[in-house]
Amino acid sequence: MENFNFYSPTYFIFGKGRENEVGEWINRFGGSKVLVHYGGSSAVKSGLLDRVKASLKKNNIDFIELGGVKPNPRSGLVYKGIEICKREGIDFLLAVGGGSVIDSAKAIAAGALYDGDFWDFYCGKEVEKALPVGTILTLAAAGSEGSDGSVITHENGMLKRSAAGDALRPTFSIMNPELTFTVSPYQTACGITDMMAHVMERYFTNTKEVEVTDRLCEGLLVAIINEAPKVLARPDDYNARANIMWAGTIAHNDICGVGREQDWATHKMEHELSGLYDVAHGAGLAVMFPAWMKYVMQHDVMRFAQFAVRVWGCEMDFQHPENTAKKGIEKFEQFLVSIGMPIRFEQLGAKPEDIPILVKNMQLGDRTLGNFVKLTEEDITKIYELAV
Amino acid sequence: MENFNFYSPTYFIFGKGRENEVGEWINRFGGSKVLVHYGGSSAVKSGLLDRVKASLKKNNIDFIELGGVKPNPRSGLVYKGIEICKREGIDFLLAVGGGSVIDSAKAIAAGALYDGDFWDFYCGKEVEKALPVGTILTLAAAGSEGSDGSVITHENGMLKRSAAGDALRPTFSIMNPELTFTVSPYQTACGITDMMAHVMERYFTNTKEVEVTDRLCEGLLVAIINEAPKVLARPDDYNARANIMWAGTIAHNDICGVGREQDWATHKMEHELSGLYDVAHGAGLAVMFPAWMKYVMQHDVMRFAQFAVRVWGCEMDFQHPENTAKKGIEKFEQFLVSIGMPIRFEQLGAKPEDIPILVKNMQLGDRTLGNFVKLTEEDITKIYELAV
Repeated sequence: MENFNFYSPTYFIFGKGRENEVGEWINRFGGSKVLVHYGGSSAVKSGLLDRVKASLKKNNIDFIELGGVKPNPRSGLVYKGIEICKREGIDFLLAVGGGSVIDSAKAIAAGALYDGDFWDFYCGKEVEKALPVGTILTLAAAGSEGSDGSVITHENGMLKRSAAGDALRPTFSIMNPELTFTVSPYQTACGITDMMAHVMERYFTNTKEVEVTDRLCEGLLVAIINEAPKVLARPDDYNARANIMWAGTIAHNDICGVGREQDWATHKMEHELSGLYDVAHGAGLAVMFPAWMKYVMQHDVMRFAQFAVRVWGCEMDFQHPENTAKKGIEKFEQFLVSIGMPIRFEQLGAKPEDIPILVKNMQLGDRTLGNFVKLTEEDITKIYELAV
Repeated sequence: MENFNFYSPTYFIFGKGRENEVGEWINRFGGSKVLVHYGGSSAVKSGLLDRVKASLKKNNIDFIELGGVKPNPRSGLVYKGIEICKREGIDFLLAVGGGSVIDSAKAIAAGALYDGDFWDFYCGKEVEKALPVGTILTLAAAGSEGSDGSVITHENGMLKRSAAGDALRPTFSIMNPELTFTVSPYQTACGITDMMAHVMERYFTNTKEVEVTDRLCEGLLVAIINEAPKVLARPDDYNARANIMWAGTIAHNDICGVGREQDWATHKMEHELSGLYDVAHGAGLAVMFPAWMKYVMQHDVMRFAQFAVRVWGCEMDFQHPENTAKKGIEKFEQFLVSIGMPIRFEQLGAKPEDIPILVKNMQLGDRTLGNFVKLTEEDITKIYELAV
């Protein structure tokens, strides 16, 4: 097991009606002037924003609203948010939405306490401080409500990049599964794919003998696989929505990743896809993850066999472990299809002829991508081709 | 799934040599005058305490030492520690040891900021504030390094009682598995039993449909069961020790308990045993848990069958699920024996004729104990008798 630090200080407030407590929680964590950040009209139409504002008013908390966050959140709104924070003396960010809104709020929170261009943090500069961010989650997917990361797309070139740091972990996250009842089947499935990918980026590792983390990963994946058809069959199944929502958090607060090398090549390959075509991150992952698996399987057949047996319930072929390994990838692809995900480039609207652009945008140079197998530009090209 | 709050803000610093960073971490978390709290001579003899003091000095941190914590930590030393904290203006507690030392430090930390008798917190008063506590863990067992709880035995009547509150969660915990290489096989097995019990107190619940938490519990138990024989066979197996150590933390920071009713009857029954006889907590749990299981199994046979199949690898007897349920309890008892744990009263030095005293000390009155099955004094008497 490798040395590690694990830090997940977010206060999670989970369950029915908990969004009505938001004012009390902001008070508890010292916020007095709040930027309420949200996305499109759904938070308004559903009445959620009104309930949030009522709780803020009840607790005498001053606030300013900034809506309009888009999926694959953009730099433009971040710059606007930073300007508001600096001008108005904002001391707390409240993100009401899914991963895009939270990631945008995190970017604003970091930028508000920084004199330079916030984009520096998305080009590798460490985030040392940020305004506190609270969240009210409305989409189970990205895990940003408990993670130290944020992903933003810069409108100059549509580059999708990530920043990370303990200062970006939310102060609190309010999670009411009922708020996800109205999420469409497609977006629900994208979220499920995203959280599974977060576990799998950590599961495929060269570090041996980390039994605890292995078992937590496998248990979490099995739980997601079992709950997925329930939320798709009955969108208002509270318990199934609750399981999926909490799974999304655990999948990405790093409890499933400690003590070993992680991969993250597939996420990076997907970021180029959704950066270029503005497709849903989960859908892009559904296309890229099986392709990556097929390409790297030979690197550790027994790892993939373990994945097949423990996660997908395949029977072990002791004479031909490779058959079991392949079976696991097949089962994963079948699962993705069953929840309505694309698994090929064309279903995504991506074009094979753009592959060189995708690879180039990665700006890898002489470096390699990922850890399970260190991928060169040639490898990455072949993986994109496998996804066609 | 029930509504819940989950909060585990402790910064975990895990791996080889990490104890040498302790001064930096205390600085980072604002400690300037530290009470270094520890147990017997092993921390001195091993050189650990010297390394700790060297790190404190290097970081210009003023400190006072208070050793002498015993297993099943006593109120006397807590009073002494509180007196020192108040007199010397201590602003940070550093616990160097296992659960007993950490629990004693937590009691001191709460008492130092309280005008009344610290024992109030162990009689039900909420802990609202406490000095920050950092830990250097030397025993994988109690999970106190990441939990909100503390258990102290009052010398007046040898009553063993617990306190809880977010303020008692350690600020940081340094965990170097190498520090557990010298833990005896018996104490190692006691620790393993304790952490398994922490998971099982959460696993046996009447709350349905909490798939994520179920799978995490099962995965964690399987990991512990697989790693246990390795640490006993080879005490310096770093990876096995690391898995066991981290499992002990996750078993009790409540990630395996969220969203549902928990039980805790067995812990309470054991506390009476170790309060009266001063036996190791884990050994007491090894005696009491199978007895509790046998007594309550009929309440939910399918739950115990699930435990047998998923945790112990039993084959499901679909015609007679009860046989599978029983098989799981048998396997658990066999496991306890295999790691050298007692499973009967007499192996513990406990006397059947004391059962009425054990029950009386619980001071239940008209209340019941536990949640999976709400136990009356009569039930508890029968469970103790099953353990004879």
